[in-house]
Amino acid sequence: MDFNIIRVARIVMNVTDLNASRDFYVNALGFIETESDGQHIYLRGLEEHCHHCLVLKKADQPGVHSIGYKVWHQEDLEKIERLFKERNLFTQWEEAGKQRALGRVLKATDPSGMPLEFFSKMETVERCLQKYDLYKGARIQRIDHVNCMVPDVEKAVAFYTDELGFRCSEYTATEDDRTWAAWLHRKPSVHDIAFMNGEGPRLHHVGFWLSDPMSLIHSCDVLASMGYADCIERGPGRHGLSNAFFLYIRDPDGNRLELYNGDYLTCDPDFEPVKWDINDPRRQTFWGHKAPDSWFEEATEFIQQESGLPVGQSKAVLAQQKPDFVT
Amino acid sequence: MDFNIIRVARIVMNVTDLNASRDFYVNALGFIETESDGQHIYLRGLEEHCHHCLVLKKADQPGVHSIGYKVWHQEDLEKIERLFKERNLFTQWEEAGKQRALGRVLKATDPSGMPLEFFSKMETVERCLQKYDLYKGARIQRIDHVNCMVPDVEKAVAFYTDELGFRCSEYTATEDDRTWAAWLHRKPSVHDIAFMNGEGPRLHHVGFWLSDPMSLIHSCDVLASMGYADCIERGPGRHGLSNAFFLYIRDPDGNRLELYNGDYLTCDPDFEPVKWDINDPRRQTFWGHKAPDSWFEEATEFIQQESGLPVGQSKAVLAQQKPDFVT
Amino acid sequence: MDFNIIRVARIVMNVTDLNASRDFYVNALGFIETESDGQHIYLRGLEEHCHHCLVLKKADQPGVHSIGYKVWHQEDLEKIERLFKERNLFTQWEEAGKQRALGRVLKATDPSGMPLEFFSKMETVERCLQKYDLYKGARIQRIDHVNCMVPDVEKAVAFYTDELGFRCSEYTATEDDRTWAAWLHRKPSVHDIAFMNGEGPRLHHVGFWLSDPMSLIHSCDVLASMGYADCIERGPGRHGLSNAFFLYIRDPDGNRLELYNGDYLTCDPDFEPVKWDINDPRRQTFWGHKAPDSWFEEATEFIQQESGLPVGQSKAVLAQQKPDFVT
Amino acid sequence: MDFNIIRVARIVMNVTDLNASRDFYVNALGFIETESDGQHIYLRGLEEHCHHCLVLKKADQPGVHSIGYKVWHQEDLEKIERLFKERNLFTQWEEAGKQRALGRVLKATDPSGMPLEFFSKMETVERCLQKYDLYKGARIQRIDHVNCMVPDVEKAVAFYTDELGFRCSEYTATEDDRTWAAWLHRKPSVHDIAFMNGEGPRLHHVGFWLSDPMSLIHSCDVLASMGYADCIERGPGRHGLSNAFFLYIRDPDGNRLELYNGDYLTCDPDFEPVKWDINDPRRQTFWGHKAPDSWFEEATEFIQQESGLPVGQSKAVLAQQKPDFVT
Repeated sequence: MDFNIIRVARIVMNVTDLNASRDFYVNALGFIETESDGQHIYLRGLEEHCHHCLVLKKADQPGVHSIGYKVWHQEDLEKIERLFKERNLFTQWEEAGKQRALGRVLKATDPSGMPLEFFSKMETVERCLQKYDLYKGARIQRIDHVNCMVPDVEKAVAFYTDELGFRCSEYTATEDDRTWAAWLHRKPSVHDIAFMNGEGPRLHHVGFWLSDPMSLIHSCDVLASMGYADCIERGPGRHGLSNAFFLYIRDPDGNRLELYNGDYLTCDPDFEPVKWDINDPRRQTFWGHKAPDSWFEEATEFIQQESGLPVGQSKAVLAQQKPDFVT
Repeated sequence: MDFNIIRVARIVMNVTDLNASRDFYVNALGFIETESDGQHIYLRGLEEHCHHCLVLKKADQPGVHSIGYKVWHQEDLEKIERLFKERNLFTQWEEAGKQRALGRVLKATDPSGMPLEFFSKMETVERCLQKYDLYKGARIQRIDHVNCMVPDVEKAVAFYTDELGFRCSEYTATEDDRTWAAWLHRKPSVHDIAFMNGEGPRLHHVGFWLSDPMSLIHSCDVLASMGYADCIERGPGRHGLSNAFFLYIRDPDGNRLELYNGDYLTCDPDFEPVKWDINDPRRQTFWGHKAPDSWFEEATEFIQQESGLPVGQSKAVLAQQKPDFVT
Repeated sequence: MDFNIIRVARIVMNVTDLNASRDFYVNALGFIETESDGQHIYLRGLEEHCHHCLVLKKADQPGVHSIGYKVWHQEDLEKIERLFKERNLFTQWEEAGKQRALGRVLKATDPSGMPLEFFSKMETVERCLQKYDLYKGARIQRIDHVNCMVPDVEKAVAFYTDELGFRCSEYTATEDDRTWAAWLHRKPSVHDIAFMNGEGPRLHHVGFWLSDPMSLIHSCDVLASMGYADCIERGPGRHGLSNAFFLYIRDPDGNRLELYNGDYLTCDPDFEPVKWDINDPRRQTFWGHKAPDSWFEEATEFIQQESGLPVGQSKAVLAQQKPDFVT
Repeated sequence: MDFNIIRVARIVMNVTDLNASRDFYVNALGFIETESDGQHIYLRGLEEHCHHCLVLKKADQPGVHSIGYKVWHQEDLEKIERLFKERNLFTQWEEAGKQRALGRVLKATDPSGMPLEFFSKMETVERCLQKYDLYKGARIQRIDHVNCMVPDVEKAVAFYTDELGFRCSEYTATEDDRTWAAWLHRKPSVHDIAFMNGEGPRLHHVGFWLSDPMSLIHSCDVLASMGYADCIERGPGRHGLSNAFFLYIRDPDGNRLELYNGDYLTCDPDFEPVKWDINDPRRQTFWGHKAPDSWFEEATEFIQQESGLPVGQSKAVLAQQKPDFVT
């Protein structure tokens, strides 16, 4: 491909109560609130120089409006538009400034039906990395990745790797060697996006990177102190896959976040994708507890960019919905 | 009382395979092996100047021979003997040197039927606190406490506090204000011994103190790397009660250990025991996951000092076997 | 002795600007402000159930009013009074309530001329150990010890060990085997008070215990972020003596504090005091940098309880003012 | 440019005693020894899948043979050769297998006289990231960067950014706005190579990435336990520049290493280089101690690839050798 997608850069999603969300995201988790208005809160991590990586939008019910990717050049947007058009996929331009802090945006829908945004410009703001007196809670550093449930993982992986230039770092295979899940990256971490086999498309979680494991432990303590213990769905634990030290939490609307530390550098082309057997118990949890059923079953639906209606969902292509050792 | 019990100081318990135990305790957990013979391994933590805090004894099946307390003076032993005799409890003297590294020992049985040892002298050895190149696995620092299931917690607590001079730091009460569990200390930590309502007497776990939370996380990783992931029964998590950052693991014979960090100083007499409602979910797990059933049900039996036979067990006095939120 | 001193429990010292001190102690270091009035700020650590462990008193110049010890019984105070009177040392009673939150106080002067207070009662307040959302900066947990420069260390040690019942955990000896410094404890940590050879008596520092090493690293970052980098005098480093992971900082008036983590349990009577050669480089700094001259030379003077005047100072008995490897 | 340099990938340097170096690098620091022969030790970090990142070569005296860069394609090597030839810089081909584990190598000399190697292939080996039982000492994860003293920083920066495609993340400017030092990257971290004004060219240090700050603290303890306390030259501390939590150590031959944790993601083209005033005290040390003179003055010389003789050194172009606050 002749364009350069840099990384996953922002998520726009609904919440039903901006103040409840602010308490959770800003006071408990330690996001920086760049700004807000009556309908939105714009959040970023401590090291981020971009205006935001997460937009919380007031709405009556949950839903994800888009997964946003930053590209290198303005011209990359035209090239990406051409690619989507050639595959008869939805695209739409949005002029600079239509959304707060964003330059020109190419909206598009991927083959799984997920709403995407591509842009090369976002306003920059002060980076708070060395404002340690602002650190609190989980000390969120930056957005790291999204994880999505899609009905046909192999189709999704083919599009992202063959057409968009993502590389696969690790993947999970079924007994008959079908790809059950895959971790794909543009920036040289384990992933910018992962796909898991499941009814969808749905957003399983957004992952945020922490600078060290103790921040994750402290965030559990702070969440519990503030009455959010029930928001902790899974973890702390270590994934075999990706080596992540993880915590999964649910925001007040049920949106799932992953706090994440511990992956590795993936910039070498001779690094072969790591293959995991779906029923290898160390894949999901190198140590620690099994994931609860909710972790396999619940996810947030997407909203169509063209209509504002929920994106229709399909049953998963592969039968197995979770690893054997959980059932 | 006119004697001074310093602290819980050692546990003697059976294992069925000394080499398998050595791999677990020394290679994975990082205990220092002071010495061993064909029938015993003597283990201590990195900061301990005493010969051992844990004796693993080769046997056909699991069982706990004794909970050992260190006392201040030799004369304290006679005073404690008198106390036990007055209450018609079993006592027996064992001369110095009969057990490796130990001075004169007073053996005794407490009102719950648990086998105890009291001694004032144990050989001292080199303290490895600053031999950081020996640190590995969980970096076990020292023995901290034992936790026992007994049928009548209130009776056990009365004996230890009124007769032996222990103080209560925290306790759990049922709805009708019966003591369901209690944490008792001599050294100024949260506990040297805790009692929980349950069929018994049985040893629920031995707790070892770690110097920092990251050692606990690293021990999970090391256990998993060495194939011991299944030994992790519960945690990592934080107890509301005691504030401990904990990990419960089972040794190759099923004996339960707690790796433990994070309690507080209890030396002030005006520190009032903290009361927890048994059904307060934050008591057991300030954050994180519910304890598995095995944690409530399984424990190791004691062995009678006088006969070498298993100590008989009784049903618990209080009906409720575990908190509501677990059932 | 027939009385029981529990632990060092509070320090009363002057500061010249209460608001500047509040920013440093509360906002940067994370002390809990129990209460304040126009002349005082009362501070405590996160795990402390006592009203305060540090009183900052507004004054024109620095000075330490007293080192306060908590005793077990009210009657212990009379016994301690008798001891001091027999040695012709100053004593004075102060009725309950004369000082905020304190019961009856015995004021006294020790043989080095240091102003002491003994009391058995202080108002208790809410312990914030599990209010993790209040944790900030250094996350001060509790007062741990004081360190004082005195002209005659051996005389001071003799009084505290022989008369007051302190035990020595570690000490530094000169080439001709004179005690150059000693660490003495009542609670079973390495020390409640240490004495170092030097012109005095002067308060070298007050030590506060942190729950883990990462809190100390984070406190450096927070201090620097808030413009207090110059307050960091020495460290982070590890002392050979005591094994403490330490940071020495100076408050806005130059009073020295130690943030401290990593010592060990000292409750066993068979634990022999550790002897260090004054010129063993690992004693002062197990690793890391030499202490700056200011650390050896600067300290805060004491104020006489009877007169309010500065306590007169004498030259040190031992010639050597600091280890060879520093000069 | 039409070629793609991925990252700095290996250093080849002399040591005078392979066994002494093995003890330091493998036993104390925790490098993985991939293999060795009578003349070389090949080392890698825990997460590295490449055969090595550091070659220690037995020799009579210290010296650095090359800084090696990995490129994306074999064809990139020809393009890089052309570039160097056009600028009349030394180049030489070395066939695959001439050096252990390496494919075809392009040797070259940069405008500062530093010996470089470019290659696209190195044998891959097992990644030990999840072999936590092998973790020891500093738990070295991977090579991160090199830092070199060169007489003309601006000339070096121009070549690496304009010709080789490096990007500048941060830089230090003198009062009259000359570039005194610069941090340049290809992979999206703060740097693959930094240049500092000084007599040179000389290798100031090789930086290795650690996964968390506690590994750095533990490495100080382990080094001291093993008798290597004198090898610690500077730190632990935090650089303002790059936000690195750092430790500088010297190997048994005086080669300087940096243990490093805490930088940030630099993949966005709109991230503007951070400018630091050379006399801003927070630049060098956000908190903590001044660098010792040795840190500014001592470095390891390079060895010419064409002759095996030391690379000639020149005086620095800019007068100021270190920041004001250090002098």
